[in-house]
Amino acid sequence: MALSVVRWGGPAARSLRGKGRALSRATAPFRPGRVAVLSKTTRFEFEQERGRAEGERRGLRERLATKGSSYSGLLERHTVHSANVQHVVDTLHKEGIEVRLVKRRDYTEEIVQWADAIVSAGGDGTMLLSASKVFGQIKPVIGVNTDPERSQGHLCLPVRYTHRFSEAVQKLRQGEFSWQWRQRIRICLEGAGINPTPVDLHEQQLSLEQHLTAHRNVAQPAPCDVVSSDPQLLSVRALNEVFVGESLSSRLPYHSHKQSLKFSLHRASYYEISIDDGPWEKHKNSGLNMCTGTGSKAWSYNINKLAYQEVEDLLSIAKEKSRVDLPINQELVEQVTDHYNQSLIFCPEDPKIFFSIREPIVNRVFTSSQHRGFTNKMSVRSRCWDACMVVDGGTSFEFNDGAIATLTVNEEDALCTVVLEE
Amino acid sequence: MALSVVRWGGPAARSLRGKGRALSRATAPFRPGRVAVLSKTTRFEFEQERGRAEGERRGLRERLATKGSSYSGLLERHTVHSANVQHVVDTLHKEGIEVRLVKRRDYTEEIVQWADAIVSAGGDGTMLLSASKVFGQIKPVIGVNTDPERSQGHLCLPVRYTHRFSEAVQKLRQGEFSWQWRQRIRICLEGAGINPTPVDLHEQQLSLEQHLTAHRNVAQPAPCDVVSSDPQLLSVRALNEVFVGESLSSRLPYHSHKQSLKFSLHRASYYEISIDDGPWEKHKNSGLNMCTGTGSKAWSYNINKLAYQEVEDLLSIAKEKSRVDLPINQELVEQVTDHYNQSLIFCPEDPKIFFSIREPIVNRVFTSSQHRGFTNKMSVRSRCWDACMVVDGGTSFEFNDGAIATLTVNEEDALCTVVLEE
Repeated sequence: MALSVVRWGGPAARSLRGKGRALSRATAPFRPGRVAVLSKTTRFEFEQERGRAEGERRGLRERLATKGSSYSGLLERHTVHSANVQHVVDTLHKEGIEVRLVKRRDYTEEIVQWADAIVSAGGDGTMLLSASKVFGQIKPVIGVNTDPERSQGHLCLPVRYTHRFSEAVQKLRQGEFSWQWRQRIRICLEGAGINPTPVDLHEQQLSLEQHLTAHRNVAQPAPCDVVSSDPQLLSVRALNEVFVGESLSSRLPYHSHKQSLKFSLHRASYYEISIDDGPWEKHKNSGLNMCTGTGSKAWSYNINKLAYQEVEDLLSIAKEKSRVDLPINQELVEQVTDHYNQSLIFCPEDPKIFFSIREPIVNRVFTSSQHRGFTNKMSVRSRCWDACMVVDGGTSFEFNDGAIATLTVNEEDALCTVVLEE
Repeated sequence: MALSVVRWGGPAARSLRGKGRALSRATAPFRPGRVAVLSKTTRFEFEQERGRAEGERRGLRERLATKGSSYSGLLERHTVHSANVQHVVDTLHKEGIEVRLVKRRDYTEEIVQWADAIVSAGGDGTMLLSASKVFGQIKPVIGVNTDPERSQGHLCLPVRYTHRFSEAVQKLRQGEFSWQWRQRIRICLEGAGINPTPVDLHEQQLSLEQHLTAHRNVAQPAPCDVVSSDPQLLSVRALNEVFVGESLSSRLPYHSHKQSLKFSLHRASYYEISIDDGPWEKHKNSGLNMCTGTGSKAWSYNINKLAYQEVEDLLSIAKEKSRVDLPINQELVEQVTDHYNQSLIFCPEDPKIFFSIREPIVNRVFTSSQHRGFTNKMSVRSRCWDACMVVDGGTSFEFNDGAIATLTVNEEDALCTVVLEE
């Protein structure tokens, strides 16, 4: 329906439909008629909302001061973000494009259906949220980093387009861009006691009220303890990663701040893992990260990267043990570290999964033959008591003893994004 | 009071009172008159209890089968543990020692006061729980690993004493052992909105009922949002480590399994850190681990250790970049890796803290000049929204925006343990 409004030509459309793996230079223009702009909730807005939800009588300025937080600092970031969002909206209007500006709570499937393209106005977190509702369709998601000084935007357009968004629109209209198909991971869940109902709370900024609202939405008869349910394909696709881990803490009734309570449970997680249909192996660790090429620059990178300090220590030990005169200087340490860290990153179009076992525990009982590697299919059987599976840091599923998750990459699921030159 | 029953001589007692840093060879016997034996809750017991709490009508065997867990396997581990606990209790009785055998819920301060020594019957988790109630007193805690085949026991006596506990008692009585003073970390909490009430749920094995009971105990007027409270010395001491981190997930009302619900929040934590009274530095990461020498073999080790695979990759890159003919073979890789990993461990008697910043995020905003290192005093200011501070994986405190924790090692807090030869 909405797609009929898009005026675009042969090669680009073919490329879109063919879902080529590599960057495909668009030779045809992209002229969306309707654009949904999803704006992030700033911390300033969050703190305001939280004050209201908690029946706070003090003003925001006073409340933040007691925590050593700066009111004017938060307001400044909020103002910067808001001005950049307004610039995006004004630019689209000037180009004769129909615009709907939405916040997280109004970003629905209907909005996605209506739009020819989604503009994510925030940082990478907002981009993940934007992508989370787009699948099985040719619907580009374009990220604008609305606070380049403070916020990461690996998934966004180069920061210069933040203040010159009309240039970006011109380039799309003139075909001066490339399509990029970012692969995503799909998850199939089976086994005892699985609950395929996602808890979708993508952004960090949750008020207590939102917590409770979300709870009410899912407080339906949950299919817990169902005996050996049939495999269920989950409704989400991971753009960055799927993480499974034991909860660090759990919270009891959250009706009021006074009643809130954390439970620290154990942090080690038990799993059985099968890689590419290989044998099941027992593992004990601090969780598993399974990422896409897009996600290989994100959490996965932070799990696996080495620091100069570590590499320098290692090379010194190697020099001593090997009795070879290795010239250990800053240049070599940096070259080796950077090269090693670069090897942890792979191409977003590559239909592979990179898994990392976090802080593996190796002893008589638990093996860990491989800490990380590439795979096409990864199966994980939970032996946890209070674990969850988190998709892109925003959607969570219960993942307890007996549940089996199978992760694969299907090119149908790829997310369409655009690449503009720096 | 209870101490008067202990018959021990000059040097050992002096060593105990002097709290020497190094291992001090006992020349005087240790003859406790009263011993409390704390027995862990096995997973078999936990599953039984959970079934009851959930009003489960199916038998345990059937319920476990649906999860792919083995009833006979759990029962076997339970039987092994129980037999070993019985052996310890029988041995103590035979030696004319008064014994009280307790489970987690009955392990109270009164029991600790009553006893001359505590025997922890379980693995390292039970040892941490045993230690958690012992402070400011000369009260040895002795660990017996009750399932050496399956359970870790770094903090326990050598495994051969599990089946020959009378040999251990003889050695204590004949002074053929060393005292070991394991340093612990104390925590002072100050700032806005702090809540010094611990949630003490040391073992993993929590039934829903226990969850709720624990909740009721602390559902008192909590001093949340107190404006700039005075510094509070927390009532716990960390034998392994203090971890601060954002909750991976939170749980809503836990009255029944059906209503239970996880919230995935963001995983990155924001802190400001000051090392040895140095300047505050901003950090964004997956949490901070601050450990003792005892804890340097535990979680801290798993955070920082390198695998052969990583070291081999690094050395290959170093060889290429340096153009030096480094002889990369299995022997060198293992030597370098083992030496490096060994350097992450330090002596339990050393009154120092080793901190590790987990998965640091380095970008324009967040620095991370030092990923880890030794310190005498570490201050952490929370910039988190839903974080907690977890001591020895068993006691949790809220640790949100504005709260400041200061960690130091005070030799008064050291835990008295014994060392027997292998």
